[in-house]
Amino acid sequence: MSSPQDLDPSDLAYLGGIDSPTVANALERLKLRDRSDGYVGGSVQCAFPELGPMVGTALTVTADNAVGRPARQDGYWELWNALEQTTGPTVIVMKDASGTPTRVAYAGEIMVTLARRLGAIGMVTDGALRDVDEVRAKGFHYFMRYPVVSHANFELSKVGDPVHIDGQVVRTGDILHGDANGIVIVPNESLRDIREAVDAIQTAERRDLDYLEGPEFTLQGYQRMRGYGS
Amino acid sequence: MSSPQDLDPSDLAYLGGIDSPTVANALERLKLRDRSDGYVGGSVQCAFPELGPMVGTALTVTADNAVGRPARQDGYWELWNALEQTTGPTVIVMKDASGTPTRVAYAGEIMVTLARRLGAIGMVTDGALRDVDEVRAKGFHYFMRYPVVSHANFELSKVGDPVHIDGQVVRTGDILHGDANGIVIVPNESLRDIREAVDAIQTAERRDLDYLEGPEFTLQGYQRMRGYGS
Amino acid sequence: MSSPQDLDPSDLAYLGGIDSPTVANALERLKLRDRSDGYVGGSVQCAFPELGPMVGTALTVTADNAVGRPARQDGYWELWNALEQTTGPTVIVMKDASGTPTRVAYAGEIMVTLARRLGAIGMVTDGALRDVDEVRAKGFHYFMRYPVVSHANFELSKVGDPVHIDGQVVRTGDILHGDANGIVIVPNESLRDIREAVDAIQTAERRDLDYLEGPEFTLQGYQRMRGYGS
Repeated sequence: MSSPQDLDPSDLAYLGGIDSPTVANALERLKLRDRSDGYVGGSVQCAFPELGPMVGTALTVTADNAVGRPARQDGYWELWNALEQTTGPTVIVMKDASGTPTRVAYAGEIMVTLARRLGAIGMVTDGALRDVDEVRAKGFHYFMRYPVVSHANFELSKVGDPVHIDGQVVRTGDILHGDANGIVIVPNESLRDIREAVDAIQTAERRDLDYLEGPEFTLQGYQRMRGYGS
Repeated sequence: MSSPQDLDPSDLAYLGGIDSPTVANALERLKLRDRSDGYVGGSVQCAFPELGPMVGTALTVTADNAVGRPARQDGYWELWNALEQTTGPTVIVMKDASGTPTRVAYAGEIMVTLARRLGAIGMVTDGALRDVDEVRAKGFHYFMRYPVVSHANFELSKVGDPVHIDGQVVRTGDILHGDANGIVIVPNESLRDIREAVDAIQTAERRDLDYLEGPEFTLQGYQRMRGYGS
Repeated sequence: MSSPQDLDPSDLAYLGGIDSPTVANALERLKLRDRSDGYVGGSVQCAFPELGPMVGTALTVTADNAVGRPARQDGYWELWNALEQTTGPTVIVMKDASGTPTRVAYAGEIMVTLARRLGAIGMVTDGALRDVDEVRAKGFHYFMRYPVVSHANFELSKVGDPVHIDGQVVRTGDILHGDANGIVIVPNESLRDIREAVDAIQTAERRDLDYLEGPEFTLQGYQRMRGYGS
């Protein structure tokens, strides 16, 4: 497995003040990847949008529902050992490999409390989680498909290995930025230029909004401003 | 394309005061169409139920995620030109044609602000939208499957052409009535009789509720009231 | 059909004070069934989490959308007659058999009002319901996949027959316990021992949380406490 990377405190503070679609737009401007790459798909939903942006580095794990035998505990403890080695903030990304994601919750209050103690600030899964009231009260981020009431016979493995989450490859160490709109991955190589790109996006959006809401607005004028058909 | 039709202000005000299931029931009473036709399926969910009923005429467009080339801008501007020609209130209905609706948001704050300026009050899609906090704050209706953080390489086309939205054909000019329960289409030919039909529904429901909650209630009595087995 | 069973008032009061994941954990401790059995899958979502736990016995029914003919009313009235024979609290469990669950709502305000009058406290379906604002205001539980605006040409049948709801067989008379996290089935044979099992779970969780949040915490210490690798 690759080692989770640390986020620079100033990058962290900066990113925490920006919403995820603006981050996505800024990254698009930097042309570091295909426009259809770099974010988690919408089936993974923000459970606690009132918490605002989640910013942290991914620690990946694969989650399954063991059949016909006791679940192995090795991966569970391997996850916590790996988490302890991060300096955080860390987001635990749990890939559902059960094939029946409606039937198993991969974490709840106890695991969240342990995760927080070890530096995690959120969990992301294309499966399910539980104890939504208790976890919301802790200010811990949940991104999931839906809650499920039972943890069934869940089993964790492949700590640190890359996973697919609704169309997106997520690697341990990836910087994740998520809010009510979803989760975008912030490439390390973008950190040098992202402030400038965000500034450019915000300036352009402010200009657009001022014009769109202002007294001079015409559709043709806006079309010209956007450089279409010129 | 057919031209969006205008809603009479008095019809608009009237319909805005009624919830969508009552409209659906009233239309059913008028027997203008099959009972399983005339509404958008439940995978398209109301994002801001606190806004109350959305009433407007549809302006349809097809939305895709262009692959391997820059997205064409023609459909984008064609949409706004068509919207400008409506007198509103208009609801933009965006059909997902990407095949990966979890991976692309078809509109956000900028497009919503432009849409409002041109007379739109809401957007409906079997795909995704974004900037949910900003759009909610504007009082603009979103009906969608889920939010998605990135607009990817979205491309609009076929402005004004009929679309399928979760089992329902929606045509430009269709009157849409939506709330927390979903979206029903109000046929033009119903407008003459819908007040009477709503009155009849509300009277019947009031009668039922009074009986169901009243001191005289028996199940057999209610069965008789509803004309079953008599 | 089997006859709905009554919940003992003291069991009912007791269960109403516990959240559903704790019930699920306690039942797991009693080893009465496979860990992947005994709860409804996450596609069926709690619509009104603010109501707290729903505890009642299931009354099952199958729901469809009749095509090309008037819906038969017999099953509808059979449901209410069966409900009247229960002493409640009862949860009506509606299995979607339409194959198009996004296109038909199986109940709304009128049916809920009748259901309440006859002793029901909630409805659970792998399909859709409607009138969410009115039903929320009544404090009546809805667990469903999504709201749908129209009841289409819905038809009820097979009152009391067992149904599958997202991976779970539900039988009339099953004790259901549901909250924001989902719905767990409480076997009758667990009622004698469940208090003790809940106490054991709560004590263990309290111990874990105290340690996880306390000054003595180390990951190795927690690992020992949980008996791993010893």
